[in-house]
Amino acid sequence: MRILSGVQSSGRLHIGNYYGAIRQFVQLQQEGDAFFFIANYHSLTTLRDAKLAETYTREAAMAYLSLGLDPKKAVLFRQSDVREVLELYWLLGTVVPVANLERATSYKDKLAKGISADFGLFAYPVLMAADILLYSPDFVPVGKDQIQHIEFARDWAVKFNLTYVPGYDPQDPEGKEKGHAPGLLKLPSARVQEDTATVPGVDGQKMSKSYGNTIDLFGDEKEIKKRVMGIKTDSTAVEAPKPTENAPLYDLLKLMLPADRFAEVDASWRAGGKGYGEYKKLLLATYLETFGPARQRYAELANDPAELERILQDGAERARAEASGLMQRLRRAVGVP
Amino acid sequence: MRILSGVQSSGRLHIGNYYGAIRQFVQLQQEGDAFFFIANYHSLTTLRDAKLAETYTREAAMAYLSLGLDPKKAVLFRQSDVREVLELYWLLGTVVPVANLERATSYKDKLAKGISADFGLFAYPVLMAADILLYSPDFVPVGKDQIQHIEFARDWAVKFNLTYVPGYDPQDPEGKEKGHAPGLLKLPSARVQEDTATVPGVDGQKMSKSYGNTIDLFGDEKEIKKRVMGIKTDSTAVEAPKPTENAPLYDLLKLMLPADRFAEVDASWRAGGKGYGEYKKLLLATYLETFGPARQRYAELANDPAELERILQDGAERARAEASGLMQRLRRAVGVP
Repeated sequence: MRILSGVQSSGRLHIGNYYGAIRQFVQLQQEGDAFFFIANYHSLTTLRDAKLAETYTREAAMAYLSLGLDPKKAVLFRQSDVREVLELYWLLGTVVPVANLERATSYKDKLAKGISADFGLFAYPVLMAADILLYSPDFVPVGKDQIQHIEFARDWAVKFNLTYVPGYDPQDPEGKEKGHAPGLLKLPSARVQEDTATVPGVDGQKMSKSYGNTIDLFGDEKEIKKRVMGIKTDSTAVEAPKPTENAPLYDLLKLMLPADRFAEVDASWRAGGKGYGEYKKLLLATYLETFGPARQRYAELANDPAELERILQDGAERARAEASGLMQRLRRAVGVP
Repeated sequence: MRILSGVQSSGRLHIGNYYGAIRQFVQLQQEGDAFFFIANYHSLTTLRDAKLAETYTREAAMAYLSLGLDPKKAVLFRQSDVREVLELYWLLGTVVPVANLERATSYKDKLAKGISADFGLFAYPVLMAADILLYSPDFVPVGKDQIQHIEFARDWAVKFNLTYVPGYDPQDPEGKEKGHAPGLLKLPSARVQEDTATVPGVDGQKMSKSYGNTIDLFGDEKEIKKRVMGIKTDSTAVEAPKPTENAPLYDLLKLMLPADRFAEVDASWRAGGKGYGEYKKLLLATYLETFGPARQRYAELANDPAELERILQDGAERARAEASGLMQRLRRAVGVP
């Protein structure tokens, strides 16, 4: 089974990113043949600073590798290292109805937020469909807001196959029944990630870079400590039982501790007798215990850019090997030498 | 001076194409460093037949070579052989306002004609701008209906330069004044072809494939003869002077004969004494005299696909050498490794 997923890096990652997405993402490599790419062409639709663009791309790769992605098992690569994707983007675009793009929710949302309507943003779902279809995955893990993109990719793959594959039958896309030709583009399925955690920030709102309430994954340890020790708490006395509602400290402990250890914390929290400072120290220790090894690997990769590049080049080669075979068949089908 | 031009081949060429465009086009190679490409990616927006797509591409190349394009002087290549163009298409697209494309006349015209609004058609001007900007030409010869596309290419080049070139000043795009940085993308100029002939078809309407009134450039000689002998004439008697208005035979003789030889024809036409049949024979002889050598070369190329491919590969290599240097600079500017 082939799984494909992409990540658009936009700077510093925090533990909300980890529990909300990266953890599940990394686990996918156990389930099959996993392709992970850093969507650095996509990033250019909003990020217009070469240095940041390169840094974010590198940081995203380092983060995934540090947090458990095994480059021997999964194929990790930069989108821009497999230029075939841009050719599929053009070929596919010739069968994409403009009306589909006009009703793409990601486009409408960004317009509503006042982001100027550039062609790159408008075209985004077409490139995303090419990203997917180029590697013929069986499924793509997505958040609910991304389901439409997978539906588009399926619809356009059907349309392309109908246009260019004689004998293709959308009712039998794999061509398993007598006389039907299999499609050139395989229809991917969306697998919606239902069980992702919502992680509270240090102020109790949802953890988000834009709220400035994050606990970073790879930030400076002093800064992490400061953030943890500054988690918003109320004025309940040390001896008194602590409230479990609107208590980001409690929620973060629950999120990060193994169930058995959290059970102890939960009991003492409800009984009273310990101050918030003590719980904060426990959270910090838990953070360092959980992410210490990843932080260590991240620092090593940061100090060895050649090794990171070697991993990305190796991933790119494996991805290209997959992509170029399909592109040859597609070129033949449309009549491009 | 660098000149760039592209042609989207859509099948059989006729003498209307020659006098209306190809002749001027081929002359450009005398004026400077000429780049000519066969726009076979563009063709895919309307042509969905692999065999026809390849045939038309080959035929367009053979036609230009037969009609005088010198592959040692000019760079003749297939658009799809320089894949860098698709990367520029993406990069440039990130700064293109969607609103520009919505008001592109080529798009509006095609919509009005009931051609379904596919993304490829909508995106067409962006790929065309990339086609141009990738080779940094000084000017692009265009028909009046194409001026808007060159204006778009200029506007978007300015926008790209403003976004990615620190110190760029659109008032000084070449960076000739103190302190201004030159743009990465050079602004092309349109050179509008004013003096192109309108060629009448055998029925007196404008010669056009869609009217079925063409005299083909490389068609079967018998068919050509039939078409010429069937040119619409009136019932003026052999001895009588012939009308010069609404007389496609007269207009075609004027178009094809050298001025001194036409002067004789004009005199006898107005004097009377010769029948239309005689003039038709003269036109056929003139056609064969004019296009005989080109038809001969075309037949030779058709019989030697390896030689044609060698010429196109050589052109592609020279075009790529130009394109890849610019693309490296652009990638560095946007932050794509």
